[in-house]
Amino acid sequence: MTTFENDYSAGAHPKVLQRLVETNLEPLTGYGNDQYCASAKEKIRAACGCPDAEVFFLTGGTQANAVVTGTVLKPYQGVLAADTGHVAVHEAGAIEYTGHKVLTLPHHDGKLDPAEVADYIRRFYEDENHGSMVFPGMVYISHPTEYGTLYTKNELEQLAEVCHSHRIPLFLDGARLGYGLASRETDVTLETIAACCDVFYIGGTKVGALCGEAVVFPQGGAPEHFVTLTKQRGAMLAKGRLLGVQFDALFTDGLYWEIGRHAIEMAERLKALLKEKGRRFYLESPTNQQFLIFEDGELERLRQKIVVSFWEKVDAEHTAVRLATSWATTEEDLEELRKCL
Amino acid sequence: MTTFENDYSAGAHPKVLQRLVETNLEPLTGYGNDQYCASAKEKIRAACGCPDAEVFFLTGGTQANAVVTGTVLKPYQGVLAADTGHVAVHEAGAIEYTGHKVLTLPHHDGKLDPAEVADYIRRFYEDENHGSMVFPGMVYISHPTEYGTLYTKNELEQLAEVCHSHRIPLFLDGARLGYGLASRETDVTLETIAACCDVFYIGGTKVGALCGEAVVFPQGGAPEHFVTLTKQRGAMLAKGRLLGVQFDALFTDGLYWEIGRHAIEMAERLKALLKEKGRRFYLESPTNQQFLIFEDGELERLRQKIVVSFWEKVDAEHTAVRLATSWATTEEDLEELRKCL
Amino acid sequence: MTTFENDYSAGAHPKVLQRLVETNLEPLTGYGNDQYCASAKEKIRAACGCPDAEVFFLTGGTQANAVVTGTVLKPYQGVLAADTGHVAVHEAGAIEYTGHKVLTLPHHDGKLDPAEVADYIRRFYEDENHGSMVFPGMVYISHPTEYGTLYTKNELEQLAEVCHSHRIPLFLDGARLGYGLASRETDVTLETIAACCDVFYIGGTKVGALCGEAVVFPQGGAPEHFVTLTKQRGAMLAKGRLLGVQFDALFTDGLYWEIGRHAIEMAERLKALLKEKGRRFYLESPTNQQFLIFEDGELERLRQKIVVSFWEKVDAEHTAVRLATSWATTEEDLEELRKCL
Amino acid sequence: MTTFENDYSAGAHPKVLQRLVETNLEPLTGYGNDQYCASAKEKIRAACGCPDAEVFFLTGGTQANAVVTGTVLKPYQGVLAADTGHVAVHEAGAIEYTGHKVLTLPHHDGKLDPAEVADYIRRFYEDENHGSMVFPGMVYISHPTEYGTLYTKNELEQLAEVCHSHRIPLFLDGARLGYGLASRETDVTLETIAACCDVFYIGGTKVGALCGEAVVFPQGGAPEHFVTLTKQRGAMLAKGRLLGVQFDALFTDGLYWEIGRHAIEMAERLKALLKEKGRRFYLESPTNQQFLIFEDGELERLRQKIVVSFWEKVDAEHTAVRLATSWATTEEDLEELRKCL
Repeated sequence: MTTFENDYSAGAHPKVLQRLVETNLEPLTGYGNDQYCASAKEKIRAACGCPDAEVFFLTGGTQANAVVTGTVLKPYQGVLAADTGHVAVHEAGAIEYTGHKVLTLPHHDGKLDPAEVADYIRRFYEDENHGSMVFPGMVYISHPTEYGTLYTKNELEQLAEVCHSHRIPLFLDGARLGYGLASRETDVTLETIAACCDVFYIGGTKVGALCGEAVVFPQGGAPEHFVTLTKQRGAMLAKGRLLGVQFDALFTDGLYWEIGRHAIEMAERLKALLKEKGRRFYLESPTNQQFLIFEDGELERLRQKIVVSFWEKVDAEHTAVRLATSWATTEEDLEELRKCL
Repeated sequence: MTTFENDYSAGAHPKVLQRLVETNLEPLTGYGNDQYCASAKEKIRAACGCPDAEVFFLTGGTQANAVVTGTVLKPYQGVLAADTGHVAVHEAGAIEYTGHKVLTLPHHDGKLDPAEVADYIRRFYEDENHGSMVFPGMVYISHPTEYGTLYTKNELEQLAEVCHSHRIPLFLDGARLGYGLASRETDVTLETIAACCDVFYIGGTKVGALCGEAVVFPQGGAPEHFVTLTKQRGAMLAKGRLLGVQFDALFTDGLYWEIGRHAIEMAERLKALLKEKGRRFYLESPTNQQFLIFEDGELERLRQKIVVSFWEKVDAEHTAVRLATSWATTEEDLEELRKCL
Repeated sequence: MTTFENDYSAGAHPKVLQRLVETNLEPLTGYGNDQYCASAKEKIRAACGCPDAEVFFLTGGTQANAVVTGTVLKPYQGVLAADTGHVAVHEAGAIEYTGHKVLTLPHHDGKLDPAEVADYIRRFYEDENHGSMVFPGMVYISHPTEYGTLYTKNELEQLAEVCHSHRIPLFLDGARLGYGLASRETDVTLETIAACCDVFYIGGTKVGALCGEAVVFPQGGAPEHFVTLTKQRGAMLAKGRLLGVQFDALFTDGLYWEIGRHAIEMAERLKALLKEKGRRFYLESPTNQQFLIFEDGELERLRQKIVVSFWEKVDAEHTAVRLATSWATTEEDLEELRKCL
Repeated sequence: MTTFENDYSAGAHPKVLQRLVETNLEPLTGYGNDQYCASAKEKIRAACGCPDAEVFFLTGGTQANAVVTGTVLKPYQGVLAADTGHVAVHEAGAIEYTGHKVLTLPHHDGKLDPAEVADYIRRFYEDENHGSMVFPGMVYISHPTEYGTLYTKNELEQLAEVCHSHRIPLFLDGARLGYGLASRETDVTLETIAACCDVFYIGGTKVGALCGEAVVFPQGGAPEHFVTLTKQRGAMLAKGRLLGVQFDALFTDGLYWEIGRHAIEMAERLKALLKEKGRRFYLESPTNQQFLIFEDGELERLRQKIVVSFWEKVDAEHTAVRLATSWATTEEDLEELRKCL
C-alpha cells in the first residue's frame, strides 16, 4: 500500500535517527539538562533571531497546547480560537481539562480574521455582564491551519496588533510549521513568527522527529517555574536527550527546512497530478495537506491501493479526504497514485 | 425608584422569612441533616410524584450547574447546551473549571431543538475521529430559558427520548422554574419535568428564597457520596437549616406556585400595558421576564424612574432591555411604569 | 435536649436576623453590589484599621479556604498547614480539587511552630530535587485552631516574618475568629491579624450569622478579577444582600465582639464547672470549644440529656468529646449540664 | 567521567534502538493503532499470564501515575501512599493537579505496611466525620521502591487482600520493575504482580527504552475510553510506534529480563566492592540502586571522577548518595570506581 494518510506515518527522518544512534551510549544528565538540549535551544534561538528566547521541549502537540494554554492564561481567562482549531475540536477537551474555556470564532478556511478577533474583544468589554463571562486571555492560531492554509505576514501582524493592544498573548501552534515555512506561497518566515507571537511551537512530530515540539517564548516571559509545571502536567521526559538530540539534528545544516521543502515539492507535484486528472479540490492549500472530494465509488477503488484520510462526508455520494506528503514521500508514491487515478 | 431589574431584587418572600424567624432559636444539627431539610425533601418528592427522588440543597444556580455537571459527567464527556445557555455564557467558565467542555448548539429563542440534538450525537459517532473529541455526555436545558421561553411537554419528551436512546442524562436548570410552572401558556408540570429529566433543580433564589436551589434526581441515581462532593466543591452550608427551612416553607400550602402565579399575573399585566402603549417586544415570552426594544433617548428617560436590565445593543439607536416581575412586584410598580411610558 | 454540640446549632443572632427582616423588602441590586455590602466592607476596614483593605463575602469556610488558596497560589505551589488543619483533613479534598497540594507539618495543640515553618522552607530550597517538588507558596493557619487554641501576637509576627522573608502570603482562617478575639487569654486583636496576615477571613457562620465569611486582603492585592473567580467557583450569591446585611449588623455597635464575649463567658463558666467536678480536659483551650475526656459509660449517660460532639477515641474505655458555646448558649444550658454531671 | 548517576543516563538498549532503525521507514498508522503496539501488548499479556489484560503505552512515569490515578479514582477519593512515594513527593503535585489528594502513611524502607493500610482504612470509616474527609480510594506502591527495596510476595498478597476487602484497587508503579524482577532476593514475578494488582505499569524509560511505560490492567476494567483520556491529558503520541516498537523489542527473547539481570549483576558487584572497601550503606537494597553514606571530603574527591546522585544530608559532615546501575553499566565502570575508592 502506498500511503498519503498523514505526515506522521513513517518514523524519524534518517538524519535525525542517525544522531540518536550516534549519541546513544553517551551518558547524559536527565530532564533536559543535557548538552544536546542546550545546543538545540541555541540553534533555535539563532534561527528565530531571538537571542533571549526561552525554549522548552515537549513531546506532542496536544500536550504543548494544553501546557502552554493552561499556564499562560489567568484563571478567569479563556483562549480565542477558530471553531476548526485543533484546541477547539480534536484534543478530547485537553484545554478544558486545564480549567479553561475555548472561546470560538467562525473560521475562514481554518483561519481567524483579525478584525473579527478585535470585534469580539471590543464587544466583550462593552457587555455590561462581562464580569460573569470568560475573559478572552489569549489568541490561538495554527500555522499551517488544520486545512493546510497559511496566514500572511500582514495577517499575523494584524493579529499581533490586536492582541498587544489588549495585552493578551498571541500563541501559534506550529505542529506543521516546517511545511508552512517551505510553502511557495508564503511571506512568513520563522523570524516573522518570532516577531509577532508571544509564544509558539515548532513541530517536530510531523516534521521528521519521532516525537517532540519546541515551545518558544521568543522574548522570554515564560510562566515562572515552567519546567516544574511541565513535570506536574506529565510532559517531562527523564531522557530529555530524546528531544534534544532530535531538535539539534533538525536545526543543523537546515534539515528542518530541507524536510519542509521536500514535502512541499511532493505536494506541488501531487496537486499538479490531481489537477491534470481533473480532480475536485475541497479548498486550495499551499502546504503539504491536500483536500480532495471524491465520488464514493471511485474513492473505494482508490483506497484499495492508496491510503488517504477521511475528512468529512460532503453529500450522500461524495466524501472529502486528505492526502498528506512528508519528508518520507517518494516519487514512487506519486507514480503509484498516478496509476490509480 | 421602581424596579423591574430582576427577580432577585427583594429579599425573601415574607412567609419564607417568617419561618426563618420562627425556627431561629431551635438548636439543629448541621450540614443539612436537620428535620427541616428532611421535611422539605419529602414535600418536594411528593410534589414531583417521585417517592424515591434524591434531593439536595445547594446555595446558587451557577454552583448547582457546576456541581451537577462536574459530578454526573464522565471525564471524557462534555455537556450539550444552547449557545445562549447560562452554562455556556454567564457562569465565568464554571463548567470548564470542573474540567468539562460545554458543547454548544444554536438556540431557538433560547431553546434546543430535539432534532438538532439527535443529529449532533449521530454525527459525532459517525465521525471517524471522535475518539479525539469530547463525547456528548449530558444535555443541559434551562426552563424557563434565559429568554423567558418554555419547552412544551412534547419537546421535553423528545429531548428525553434522544438522551435516553443514547444513555446520557437530561439536566434541566430550573433557576426560574416557579415562573415556568405558573405560566398561562404551558402544559409542563413539575411531574412532567420529573418524568423527563434525570436531574433538575428547583430554583429558590429567584423564586422567593434568600438563596438556595433544590437539586432533584427524580429516579435516584445521584453520584456516589454526592454530599461529600458538595463539601469538596464549597457548596455545603454548616447551617443547612437555612436552605431546609426555606424550601420547607416554599413547598408548604403551595407557596412556590403562589409566588409563580403572582409574578405571572404581574408579567401579563406588564405585557398588556406595554402592548397597549405600542412598545416593541424583542421576543414573545410567556413567563416573568419580558424583553423590550427601546429607542435610546426614550430608554434614558425611562431609566430616571424605572430600573430595567440592559440586555444588548440592537443597533446604533436602539437597545434591548429586560423587565422582570417577581413575588415582590406590586400594582403600584405597574402604575408607576404606566405613568412613565 | 440541651446542646453544646457546636457553635452553629442555632440560627442567626437575633439582631442579625432582625436586620434581615427590616431590610427584606428593599429592592437592591445583586451580586454584592448593594449598599449593605458596601457599608459592611467599610465597617470591616475600619475595624481592621486598614482603609485600603479589599473585602469579599463568601458563604462558608471550606468555600473561603478553597477560593482563597486556589486563586492566591501559583500553579507550582502548595499550601503549608498543620496536619490537623481544616484544609488538611476536613474539607473533603477541597484544596486538592483546586489542583493544589496541602503540605503538612506536625501540629502543636493545633498550631504551627514558626521555626518549623522556616526550617521546612529552608530545607525545601536546599534539596537539589526541589524543582520536581511542590513549592511552599502560602502558610495557612486557623485562629482559633481546630483545638480552640490561639496564636500569641509574637507567634503571629514570627510567622509573618518567615512568610514575608520568602515572599509568600500568610493566610488566617478565622472561622471562629470572634471567639479568639474575645478570649481572656489573648494579646491578638483584629488589628494584629490585619497587620500580620496577607489574607484572612472573619467567620460569620459560627459567630452569629446564618452563613457568610468576610475575606479580607488587608493591604489590598487580591487576585485580579476576584469577583469573577468567585462566580466561576460557585461562591457568589445573586442576593449578595444576604451576606452584606448580616455583616453590616455584626459590625454595628460591636455586635461581633459582644457575641464573642458572651460565648467566652459561657465557656469560662463551663470550664469552671467541669474543673469543679474534677473532669479531665483533653487540652487547655482559651476559647469557646472545650475538649474533655469521658469514661464511655459516663458519656453514654450524659448524652441522654446533653448533646456533645464526638472528637476521637482515646482508648478502649475513654472518648474525647467537644463542648462548644456560642452566642446562643444560656445559663439554663449550664445549669442543665451541672445537673447531669 | 564514569557515571553511576542514575539508570536513565544512556539512551536505549542497543537492541531496542536497532528495532527502531529497522522499522523506521515502514508506514504505520498513528496513535498506537499500529502492528508493533499490538504485538507488544500481546507479548506483555503473555508475560503476565493474563490473556485479557488491557495494555496502554504512555511516555513517562509521572504521566502514567497521574493518568492512572486521575482516571481510576472517584472524585471523592484520594490515593494512599508511603510518605516517600514518588507520587507524594517528587512529581511536582501531578496527582493534586488531577484534583485528588495523596494520603500518606509512614514508610518502612520505602514500603507500606499492609497492617497499617488496613488500620488506616478501618479508622477512616470509624471516624464519625469521614463524610467530610477524603476517602481512601486506591493504594499506590512502587516496586522497587524509591529506596530500591522490594515487597515480598506475601506482602503483595496482603496488600491485595486489604484492598480487595474494601473494593479499592491496588496500583503498582513499576518504573524500575525490570530491576525488581531480576533481583536475587525476590519471590515476586511478573505473574505475581499481575495476580495481586488491579493496575500497574512496566517501566521502560529506566529499563532500556528511550521513553515509555506500559500500563497494564491485568484483569481488564480500564476506565472507559481510556485512550481518549490519555489524549485529553497530553499523554498520547501521534507516532505511537515509538512506544510499540520499543516494548515489542523489550518483550522479545526476554530482553527485559536480560537488561534487569545485567544491572543486578553489576549492582551486586558494586555492593561487594563497596563492602570490601568498608563503606557505609544507608540501607540494604536488593536492586540496582545503592545508597551510601560518605564523609563529605571523601565524597568531593570521588565526585571528581565518578558521577553519583545526591540523596540527602545525613549530618554536618556526611552525605547520603545514590549509585545506580543499568543495562549500560560496564565492568570498566566498576573498575574505575574501584580505583577511586
